Amino acid sequence: MGTTQLETVPEPKYWHLKTVLSEALDSEFAVGEILPNERDLAARFGVARATLRQALEQLELEGRLQRRRGVGTTVAPPRVGVAVAPARHSWPGAAGDDWQVLGCDESGSVPAVVARLLETAEGDPVHIVRRSRVTEDRPLAAELLYVPAAVIPSGAEIALLTGPAQAYAVLAQLQSLELEGQDRTVELGSARAEDAKQLDRLPGAPVLVVTTRYVSGGRTAAVAVSTYRADTCRLTFGESDAVALLAG
Amino acid sequence: MGTTQLETVPEPKYWHLKTVLSEALDSEFAVGEILPNERDLAARFGVARATLRQALEQLELEGRLQRRRGVGTTVAPPRVGVAVAPARHSWPGAAGDDWQVLGCDESGSVPAVVARLLETAEGDPVHIVRRSRVTEDRPLAAELLYVPAAVIPSGAEIALLTGPAQAYAVLAQLQSLELEGQDRTVELGSARAEDAKQLDRLPGAPVLVVTTRYVSGGRTAAVAVSTYRADTCRLTFGESDAVALLAG
Repeated sequence: MGTTQLETVPEPKYWHLKTVLSEALDSEFAVGEILPNERDLAARFGVARATLRQALEQLELEGRLQRRRGVGTTVAPPRVGVAVAPARHSWPGAAGDDWQVLGCDESGSVPAVVARLLETAEGDPVHIVRRSRVTEDRPLAAELLYVPAAVIPSGAEIALLTGPAQAYAVLAQLQSLELEGQDRTVELGSARAEDAKQLDRLPGAPVLVVTTRYVSGGRTAAVAVSTYRADTCRLTFGESDAVALLAG
Repeated sequence: MGTTQLETVPEPKYWHLKTVLSEALDSEFAVGEILPNERDLAARFGVARATLRQALEQLELEGRLQRRRGVGTTVAPPRVGVAVAPARHSWPGAAGDDWQVLGCDESGSVPAVVARLLETAEGDPVHIVRRSRVTEDRPLAAELLYVPAAVIPSGAEIALLTGPAQAYAVLAQLQSLELEGQDRTVELGSARAEDAKQLDRLPGAPVLVVTTRYVSGGRTAAVAVSTYRADTCRLTFGESDAVALLAG
């Protein structure tokens, strides 16, 4: 097989194979179709199994392939566009919100990076609401929303509730506060065990981690850490004007 | 080594090792420090080399480790926050823009997904401006900006220029148009050979691909495909009010 020579970066063998495979996917396979097994594919393209596996991993990163245990490797459908910053800026749990409440992580701990944003000290009570975002029965994202008890009017009373009741009470109390602003970061991460379960992935699967900071009363009043499946999701950030101009 | 049993998702061995290694990084290693070689690490933690390698890959995905050829595996500095949607919405190349112009890809082709957004047909002339975003001498992102010649006032004349001169002329002409809106998507990808070179990474390295659509005259007038290093970048999206409220 020929390889393209580049000036300074040598092109690895699996990279060329990836391009060839990608073209084969376009021309020979339909979405959802199961690929031949690794041995047959390696033989067809005249490469070692290790090279083939690297190329398949690349295609999985790019969202072209899905590997599922017990099924094999299938051609992935196009990624789903998921609106991350809705046009109407509002607290989590507002009407029309795409998230489903699962409950409260009562024994969960606050990661150091979240505690820094919230300016909470160790031992400060923080409500942790677990939510899930699902579309057409496919899990898209898992979320942990951190709300210090000191931020909401009845933080202490709410702590007496359990499970979803506590979660709904925390969200309801947030709506009573003025939301002054929000900002977010997006970075690559790997799914933690709990999130992986919710996302129907193995722990360690690549995910896009969106951290949203909600500002009220001049402080960070809540932080949401949302973990999106990187294989199936394309996060969309829209100004309402651009979206409206080109909708449809 | 013990493993934590979860209800439905079996926790792979490398996952537990990753957690242990992560703690060791926090307590025993400084940023930039070179890790012991794989053989020594595998022996220390009593695991197979393959398991160790998987754990190291996870830590690289999470931005905790950097693997560089000829250097080895080092402890990564914290990711750099990179503002993706500046508060002041403006065309690429506006004053104060963080991007550096490299030139025009005169023989480059327009990917199908970009052509769909621009509603251009095959053969329609499209200017492709290549730019680079660098901070403290570290490459952060590589960008290709696609501008159909039909969109800008002197598209045909500009085509007679070459290299950076053409690129600057395209950007200057964009500034003369009214920018009606923009929106963007973020997804996981793998670095293409050309971008990898610009980013000082190997082809196939995980990247965050930001596709920005610029709207003018009721149509998509330009599309930028920006490829950010996923290992070193944390993309930030801010509303000006939240950023201003909590700056510093």
